[in-house]
Amino acid sequence: MNTPQLVDRVRAGDRRALARAITLVENGAPQLREIMAGLAEHAGRAQVVGFTGSPGVGKSTTTSAVVRAVRDKGLSVAVLAVDPSSPFTGGALLGDRVRMQDHATDPGVYIRSMANRGHLGGLSWAAPHALRVLGAAGFDVILVETVGVGQAEVAIAGQADTTVVLSAPGMGDAVQASKAGVLEIADVLVVNKADRDGARVTLRELRQMVAMKDREDHEWKPPIEMTVADRGEGVGDLWERVREHYDHLSASGELAERRRARAREEVQAITLDLLRSRMAGPEAGKGLDRLAADVADGRTDPYAAADTLVGELTDSTGP
Amino acid sequence: MNTPQLVDRVRAGDRRALARAITLVENGAPQLREIMAGLAEHAGRAQVVGFTGSPGVGKSTTTSAVVRAVRDKGLSVAVLAVDPSSPFTGGALLGDRVRMQDHATDPGVYIRSMANRGHLGGLSWAAPHALRVLGAAGFDVILVETVGVGQAEVAIAGQADTTVVLSAPGMGDAVQASKAGVLEIADVLVVNKADRDGARVTLRELRQMVAMKDREDHEWKPPIEMTVADRGEGVGDLWERVREHYDHLSASGELAERRRARAREEVQAITLDLLRSRMAGPEAGKGLDRLAADVADGRTDPYAAADTLVGELTDSTGP
Repeated sequence: MNTPQLVDRVRAGDRRALARAITLVENGAPQLREIMAGLAEHAGRAQVVGFTGSPGVGKSTTTSAVVRAVRDKGLSVAVLAVDPSSPFTGGALLGDRVRMQDHATDPGVYIRSMANRGHLGGLSWAAPHALRVLGAAGFDVILVETVGVGQAEVAIAGQADTTVVLSAPGMGDAVQASKAGVLEIADVLVVNKADRDGARVTLRELRQMVAMKDREDHEWKPPIEMTVADRGEGVGDLWERVREHYDHLSASGELAERRRARAREEVQAITLDLLRSRMAGPEAGKGLDRLAADVADGRTDPYAAADTLVGELTDSTGP
Repeated sequence: MNTPQLVDRVRAGDRRALARAITLVENGAPQLREIMAGLAEHAGRAQVVGFTGSPGVGKSTTTSAVVRAVRDKGLSVAVLAVDPSSPFTGGALLGDRVRMQDHATDPGVYIRSMANRGHLGGLSWAAPHALRVLGAAGFDVILVETVGVGQAEVAIAGQADTTVVLSAPGMGDAVQASKAGVLEIADVLVVNKADRDGARVTLRELRQMVAMKDREDHEWKPPIEMTVADRGEGVGDLWERVREHYDHLSASGELAERRRARAREEVQAITLDLLRSRMAGPEAGKGLDRLAADVADGRTDPYAAADTLVGELTDSTGP
């Protein structure tokens, strides 16, 4: 399957083509350029919902239950499970298999795990690229699930139109979430396992923390939904809250703004990669090698060297 | 204490100044520019030894035992424990306290933990900066200990003059290490806890893997040392191997080459940070915003947009 064929089949929603395209994203393959060019005008139409929260709060179960709620509305849905901290897909793939059992025979559901490989810190454009692929394939809704609550996870979940932050009773993770900056990006909050002891305490803690946070978007107060995802309780309501937030975004013009911000991050990450290769390339490489020797020998410091290199890489009329 | 004073006191080996300077590194403080300029000509004289290996192989114990071996030679030593995956210093600091007990009263020993904070993937220049600070303070030897065996840990440990990779019997971590690319960067290998069952098996596995690896430096065959670090057994020999590698590096000219490579990484990372801020700045920001809108609306793809942005940021006569 050559690249134009792959693009056509992705657009037609072909499962094998989708799987192949996302693997190319994971590997940072050179064909990505042509693939993204071919998909550009078809991407960006899906509603993207991010799910994040500490391990053990029931993210997979909740995502799976939300898939059902979305299907009940007659919408098609793709799930992208991202583990930004691991170079391997092993664990995430296991999760796939477990969840696939529920939706395996449903042609309106596609589930895929993705690891961030490549250089240090992962490929920061990998998740946006995968969203682009799934969006171009015509899914109405894309659910992005991240594995932890670190900064990378927050960054990925924060690229969604709506970010859902999950907690569970007795994990003290409301406080943890607050530390990791998760609450700032929460559009909808969930206390899952709401049938357990301490659910009310968690709800109260979250309410207090939400009240204290000063959100940029003053017109949207993040609702807190109580769910028991493994019995499907509250999940229909959760999806209603997500839809309400989406309607709010559309009406206020913030939807377009969030999508521009997402594209901005993506373009910026690719630009940095291009500049990084240019720095390692034969032209600047020579300058970099000379400067590195100066730094190693104590003739200059790394900042002064970087200034020189930026000057060599960029227009002399620049700032 | 203003910045010139801080630079002077760091050079004098003042503990409080050292602690302050490394905290500034952790926080990516604006004073770093001036500090690094002041320290440039004094840095880079220490012998830097990296220690890496899976959790549980006894890295802390081994590092502590090596500190003793180095002190027995009459050399001063600094230990830098880096946790690249955590934005918090919590866990690492606990380790400090435990190990400090052994060396707390010794003025020739300095131990410090460092977390990588800041943006996604951590500050890639943080560990090199801290090495620069400790080197300028006049320590003869700097031991860098990383917390795990991920890519970030490998990258940090790989910035040492000599990289020591630790294993222990029955952890299957020889295979893990092989996967994570640790063996490629190992200059000296250690089987710690060599009094346990399976030490011979681990030794044999490592030997086979080392034999299979094609190293760039054909003149150095990584030795494998058996240690029982908590009783100090084999640690003197381990230090001898490290010294032999250092002598080999010096004699072959590779020492200067490794240090240039380290400086190269550092300059490159700072340059990317500068370009990143420039992209977010008022000038390029406008171009980026326009391009992001084009991408979000499907008028172009992120790669074409990045090409345009690189063109705007860099000289038009460039490649």
